[in-house]
Formats: sequence, C-alpha cells, structure tokens
Amino acid sequence: MLREETIDVGALELDCGETLPAVQQRVTIDGADPLPSGENIVFAAHALTGSSRVAEWWPQVVGDGALFDRRYWCVIGINVLGGCYGSTRPQERVTVRDIVRAQLRVFDKLGIPRLAVVAGGSLGGMQALQWALDAPERVGHAIVIGASDHHTAMGIALNAVQREAIALDPVRGVALARKIAMLTYKSDDLFRERHDRKADRKGRAQFDVEGYLDHQGEKFVERMDGATYTLLTHAMDSFDVRDRVAPPGVDLTFVGISSDWLFRPQEIRAAAKRLHARYLELESNHGHDAFLAEPDRLRDLLAPIVAVPLSSRA
Amino acid sequence: MLREETIDVGALELDCGETLPAVQQRVTIDGADPLPSGENIVFAAHALTGSSRVAEWWPQVVGDGALFDRRYWCVIGINVLGGCYGSTRPQERVTVRDIVRAQLRVFDKLGIPRLAVVAGGSLGGMQALQWALDAPERVGHAIVIGASDHHTAMGIALNAVQREAIALDPVRGVALARKIAMLTYKSDDLFRERHDRKADRKGRAQFDVEGYLDHQGEKFVERMDGATYTLLTHAMDSFDVRDRVAPPGVDLTFVGISSDWLFRPQEIRAAAKRLHARYLELESNHGHDAFLAEPDRLRDLLAPIVAVPLSSRA
Repeated sequence: MLREETIDVGALELDCGETLPAVQQRVTIDGADPLPSGENIVFAAHALTGSSRVAEWWPQVVGDGALFDRRYWCVIGINVLGGCYGSTRPQERVTVRDIVRAQLRVFDKLGIPRLAVVAGGSLGGMQALQWALDAPERVGHAIVIGASDHHTAMGIALNAVQREAIALDPVRGVALARKIAMLTYKSDDLFRERHDRKADRKGRAQFDVEGYLDHQGEKFVERMDGATYTLLTHAMDSFDVRDRVAPPGVDLTFVGISSDWLFRPQEIRAAAKRLHARYLELESNHGHDAFLAEPDRLRDLLAPIVAVPLSSRA
Repeated sequence: MLREETIDVGALELDCGETLPAVQQRVTIDGADPLPSGENIVFAAHALTGSSRVAEWWPQVVGDGALFDRRYWCVIGINVLGGCYGSTRPQERVTVRDIVRAQLRVFDKLGIPRLAVVAGGSLGGMQALQWALDAPERVGHAIVIGASDHHTAMGIALNAVQREAIALDPVRGVALARKIAMLTYKSDDLFRERHDRKADRKGRAQFDVEGYLDHQGEKFVERMDGATYTLLTHAMDSFDVRDRVAPPGVDLTFVGISSDWLFRPQEIRAAAKRLHARYLELESNHGHDAFLAEPDRLRDLLAPIVAVPLSSRA
C-alpha cells in the first residue's frame, strides 16, 4: 500500500506559549499493512530537508532486503511541523518537542496507539529521542542516528551562519547555506578521495570540489525555501534534553558515525551513557551523511537489534 | 628600533604569466639591530588577515621573554602581495610562490642575504615552507605552523563558501565570511567550554556563540576588504608543493595543532614525513587559532630547537 494524506491534528500548543489554531501534517504510509499490535510499524523521522516520503530520502533503508523492508514493514513518514512539504509552517519558532507533539497527534488520528520503531538521523534522530522521552509507552525502540541529547555550540554556530546567508539573499543565500551544510555533512577524507585538488570537470577556473558544491546549491534551491530552513535550524538549535532521565520500557539506541564532525561520535557516546542506552558506531568516511549514504553498513549494524516483524514470519 | 617603510621591488613576474610593472611591499622592522650574519633575523610571515606589524598579530611571540624576544631578535614583517595593509594588490590571481618571490626581493633591497628563521602559521606557514623550497640558501630554519604541503579539498571548499558570501554582499558578506572562518579556526571543545548553550550576554533572542560571531564579524569589516580576502584565499587554494623534494641545508620544522580541523595534524605529520622534516605537535583545544592563542605553549615547544641569537649572549 502507498497512501498519502494531509491530516488535520487540530489546535497545538507550542513550547513558546503560543497556540496554533489548526495544524496540518502531511503523512505518507508505505509498505505492508500495519498490524493492530503495531509491531511492524516504523516511523522514519526526516532530517532538515526531508519530507514524508521516506522512500525518496531513505530508499535503501526501506527497500527490498533493507533494514525496514517495505514488504514486511509499514513505513510511516510525516513532514515535520514547519516543513515545506505539506505540513503547517508557523510564524513562531518551533522546537523538536513541538514537532513530536504534532506527530503524536497524527498517530492518534490514525488509531495507532503504539509502534515498533521510531528511527531517524540528525534532526530525525532528535525526534526519535524526543519520542522516547515524551511517549515511552508508545514506542518499542527508538533509534537515534547522528544526534546526541543536545545541539552543541559549534552546531548552533554552523546553523547561524547558514541562516545569515539566507538573510543576505533569499535565493542565492539558500544555495550558499546548502553548500556550507554540505561541508558539515561530509568528511575531509571523503573530499580528498572524491575531489582532492582536481580541476573542475567542466573546465571552469575552479577546483572540482567547487563545481560539486555549485551543483548541490543549484539543486537545493529548487526544493527548499529559506523560511523553512531558518525555522528548522532554529528547532535543531533548541534541542537539549540533558535534564531528562532514561525513559522506562523503551529500547533506546544511539548510533555515532566515526567520521562525523558535526555530531561527533564521542558526544553521542556520552549521551548514550547518560541515558543508559545502547551505543553503536557506524564506521564510515562519509561523515554525518553516512546515515543516508551507507545503508548497507547501517543495516548490518542495526539488523541484530531490530526485531523482525511478525508479518515477515507469517 | 622600529622602522616602517614601503619598498619598491620593481617588476615582478607572476605564476599566471603576467608581469606586474612595479610592486610595492609594506615592511616593518622591529626589535634588535640586525646582525650582518643574519643570525638574529626572523621573518614572521602573516596569515590571511595579518599585516607587516608582527607585534600586532603575534604580540606574545615577539614580546619580552617570548620565543622571538625583540630585545635580541630583529623581527621583520611584510604585508603579503595582494594584502590590504600597504602592499600592491594586483588584479591577477597570485600564488604563495608569487608572494614569496616579492618577499625575497624585499630582503635583496634591505641587503640581507640570509636570515636565521622564517616562521608563520596557516597562510604564513605556507610562505615559510615556500621560502625553504625556493630559497634554501637564504634561510637557516623554516617553521611551518598549522599548514601542510598542500591545501586540501575541504580547505578549498571552505574558502569557496567564504568567497561566495562576499560575492553576495561586499560588506555583510565579508562579516559572514569571517564568521564561517572563525568556526574553522576554533574547536568544538573550545566552543563548548566558552559558550556551550548559554544565552546571549546582551539578552538578544539568540545563543551566546551567535553574539560572539556577530562581534567578530563587525570588528572584521573595519579592517579587511573583500577583494583582498578573495585574492588571498585563492592564493591559499593554489598551494601544493607535494612535487618538491626536501630542501638541502634548511632546518625544516612542521607544527601540527592537536585540535585543528582545518589543517589536521595528521596531514601536517604526513607532509613532514614526505619532506624529511621535524614534526612537533602543539597540544591545545584552541583549534587552528592555537598558533596565535597559545604563545606560551608554542614557545615551550619551539624554544629547544630555535637557536638563541648571538646578540642575546653578548
């Protein structure tokens, strides 16, 4: 099945104190039919620039033979509150907690009291952790990839310079923000391997890596707008759950990426320790992006701890 | 003595093939009188935003009791070709080799055939290495801090996004470029220690680290212009001497900084190995900036290998 709909979740109080009168959430439900027990339902929380269409941004994680194989798993995606792919985008600043509050309402509306897994990377990982903390009775296993229990000063600073680029120019600034972000998503070693000091492949008076960034910036402005980018980076910046205790009854797993310098593995390991959670490390030279770029390694790492849903055994 | 002058070094051929008809170099000579042997002369090569006034940007490295104590050392600084502190700024792109070619002419004009030390960090380190390679007979010891034998793909990419900010807005873009650069000069741990997730100290709706960056950007636009920034980042990008062999007769030292993620210590160690040079590591959580921010540690690290000049023994 593949179902897409916009669900009205009603009025929503935000952490800033304001109340949004009528919040819409864009939802995509894909894969196997959901079991009433919820044991084959995975909610895949998207990162900064994703959408409810999980199969578009995590194709090899929900494809045939993948970690969450859609033949057996019911894969649900929701465009975050503030996103530009069909959900309400408020004027107010939102937090990760606000985003999750709206998502829990979606599952109420869908009549799904409990699901097997919430998983996501980066901003998606923050959501997965917030789920575990705010609704431990509603999720069996929260998988937090490339995110710790707070956004660091360096993370905040990197988001700030990206927002400032957008403030300089609403189009070219969005492209520039993306380029800056791409540097934080990749690693030095990967860039050396791919680009090193090679000349531009189109013969322009620049290096190959500059042409690569130009291409990334151009593609990005077609699918993202500055207001959403600004809103969601502020949401990331707001994230800090270091005052929370380990959620009872939730299997909680953190995954650090060995070459990630935006969300450093040592930070993630420390967060796992604070929350008495499992810590696994994805060995990769892809940097932060490894949660998207290394689906096979991610599957090998997580398959042993993700319960196979009943439907696959039937 | 303290002497400042603008020296005309005549026509200069550039690596791009063009010839500049009349090149001026702004020079500051400070400290002890130079000995005819040159053994108390140090040329301190400045980084991206410095000037010929070494005492302004490296005060604790040339002050009393410092590594190059001006009571004994004659400290010479030259604003780089393309700089905005008194030297010629060409329309053409320049390379580190061009910059050093102009500097060698300055020493010809000053009647200094040989000096004891050339030292610098970052772009200044690239100059020190280029000196050792291009004029090994003219320098006793080249000290290359926070720089390797080539600029990496990540380094190029980071410079490219900074230039793009300047292309968006010649004033606010320069401030933004500086902010981006500051992130690459500092370290995650330092930011955590200094700013963590603290609120803005002036009560604005932002984090402390954002206020810090704003302040850095504002200060910077008063002393730097976009054309120089663009020209000199291109010069850095052009730097690649991996095809060169170890210079004969020069004592060559590379210094990596443990927390530097712009010029990673492992890269610098590898460069030292390729050039059969000494490698030392500065332990610091200041990141790339440690060559400016940790003068005491730098002195402790380098004092054992920097010969004390005769004048101090007299």
